[in-house]
Amino acid sequence: MRYISFEQDGKALLGVRDGKQIRVLGEETLEQLLARGVDLQTYGRDTESKGTVEEAGLKLLPPLRRPTKIICVGLNFADHTKESNFKQPDYPTIFLRLNTSLIAHNQPMIRPTVSDSLDFEGEIAVVLGKGGKNISKQDALKHVAGYALFNDGSVREYQFKSPQWTVGKNFDGTGAFGPDLITADELPPGAKGLLLETRLNGEVVQSANTDTMVFDVESLISILSEAFTLEAGDVIVSGTPSGVGWARTPKLLMKHGDVCEVTVERMGTLTNKIVDEAAR
Amino acid sequence: MRYISFEQDGKALLGVRDGKQIRVLGEETLEQLLARGVDLQTYGRDTESKGTVEEAGLKLLPPLRRPTKIICVGLNFADHTKESNFKQPDYPTIFLRLNTSLIAHNQPMIRPTVSDSLDFEGEIAVVLGKGGKNISKQDALKHVAGYALFNDGSVREYQFKSPQWTVGKNFDGTGAFGPDLITADELPPGAKGLLLETRLNGEVVQSANTDTMVFDVESLISILSEAFTLEAGDVIVSGTPSGVGWARTPKLLMKHGDVCEVTVERMGTLTNKIVDEAAR
Repeated sequence: MRYISFEQDGKALLGVRDGKQIRVLGEETLEQLLARGVDLQTYGRDTESKGTVEEAGLKLLPPLRRPTKIICVGLNFADHTKESNFKQPDYPTIFLRLNTSLIAHNQPMIRPTVSDSLDFEGEIAVVLGKGGKNISKQDALKHVAGYALFNDGSVREYQFKSPQWTVGKNFDGTGAFGPDLITADELPPGAKGLLLETRLNGEVVQSANTDTMVFDVESLISILSEAFTLEAGDVIVSGTPSGVGWARTPKLLMKHGDVCEVTVERMGTLTNKIVDEAAR
Repeated sequence: MRYISFEQDGKALLGVRDGKQIRVLGEETLEQLLARGVDLQTYGRDTESKGTVEEAGLKLLPPLRRPTKIICVGLNFADHTKESNFKQPDYPTIFLRLNTSLIAHNQPMIRPTVSDSLDFEGEIAVVLGKGGKNISKQDALKHVAGYALFNDGSVREYQFKSPQWTVGKNFDGTGAFGPDLITADELPPGAKGLLLETRLNGEVVQSANTDTMVFDVESLISILSEAFTLEAGDVIVSGTPSGVGWARTPKLLMKHGDVCEVTVERMGTLTNKIVDEAAR
């Protein structure tokens, strides 16, 4: 099933795609459903509709607005590690995102006033349906509720102002997430074998198969759960392939009016227009 | 005022110190009070008591268990930057902590099974009472609700397995926070001019005046709010001085049975016993 979070008359609602329409399920959020252990593969089917809405013109929200964690994986495609001038680490490179950075499909991605170095990073986000500690790699995919697209918009100057990337990865309005949360049964295990493509103003700037991740989804879940307790509602953003604008000569940076799209085979497309902070 | 979060009969309660006793205020958490804009400098006084309890034997909780953000500052004392073999950056070095890593005063700090490299970092945590974006340095301290002690327990091997420190800073049971949230009016502005001391088994291992922070509290609030929206309930953990165990020859690492204390003048002492994960 494909869940959509959206806003109508000032209320946040959850719906599920049904052909070209969206069946409204109610006000309970995906965060709340996941926290109480609901199986999203059946919930949308078994829940009485509160009407239907058309997608056109709908104001989408990120699938989850306040995930319990947003764990991002850096350097998870070997050619991106190389273009970024890092040595490939043999352990996942992890940074965290704040909820305040999230935006939805079709919402503006904000190019901040303080820097013109906003860059794209097309990725797949994994949403956990079940938490745990010391999860085996073999069991790891049982903990996945579903997947979504993510554009890990990065303000490069701030990412590299200190040894830790956190600030450059957390500007308001830079973490695009959506449009749908797609339950795991609709995709290959671990979202493997899918073509991921990022386009800037229609031109392909990143293209890679998810098979080429250094640490696949089950490895990430298993390795991370050795350190900390994972929770239902946690999001793991699994890393971007090569082609980022900052690594190019000359640099390709996003500017006001640009349109950035992340497409993954069988998943869909996440679209965001770049808007200068000052122009909002 | 000094607020204490604690557990009694399976319920999380909030209290305020009143001489040697703790006056019980109720079940509303500090997160909830801060989110609804309550002024903590008067709330404890103006709220009817629901009885009193003795501190002895009380099971404390972290002042906030689910802060909206836990923003940690690295390399914020020049001599610690030097002992860590980093060049002093001219911008704050920021990493984030997850709520799952938090423990309270007198709770065990967990030395994980996968590594024996658990290290101490005595620090001051700043709790925001008011959020904002682009907060001026001049206004920054008006956004502070209060301060607490923090021991930023770090699993060094994991901190340095990749270029990002996140995992080594986020093991379960390593972020000690408390005992009290002390409202800002009880301390000097920005918690400046206070002696911070960490002791391991009674021996002083870190000692510095908070005046020697590279980025003071008002600078941190102002600089961070250029990038992202701060919220009431956010916590900024302001950085540790020199003396950490990992930088010593030979290394001084914490082991099962050790007792680590962080004391800051006029604030109090945060005490945690180190317990092996396997022994829990």
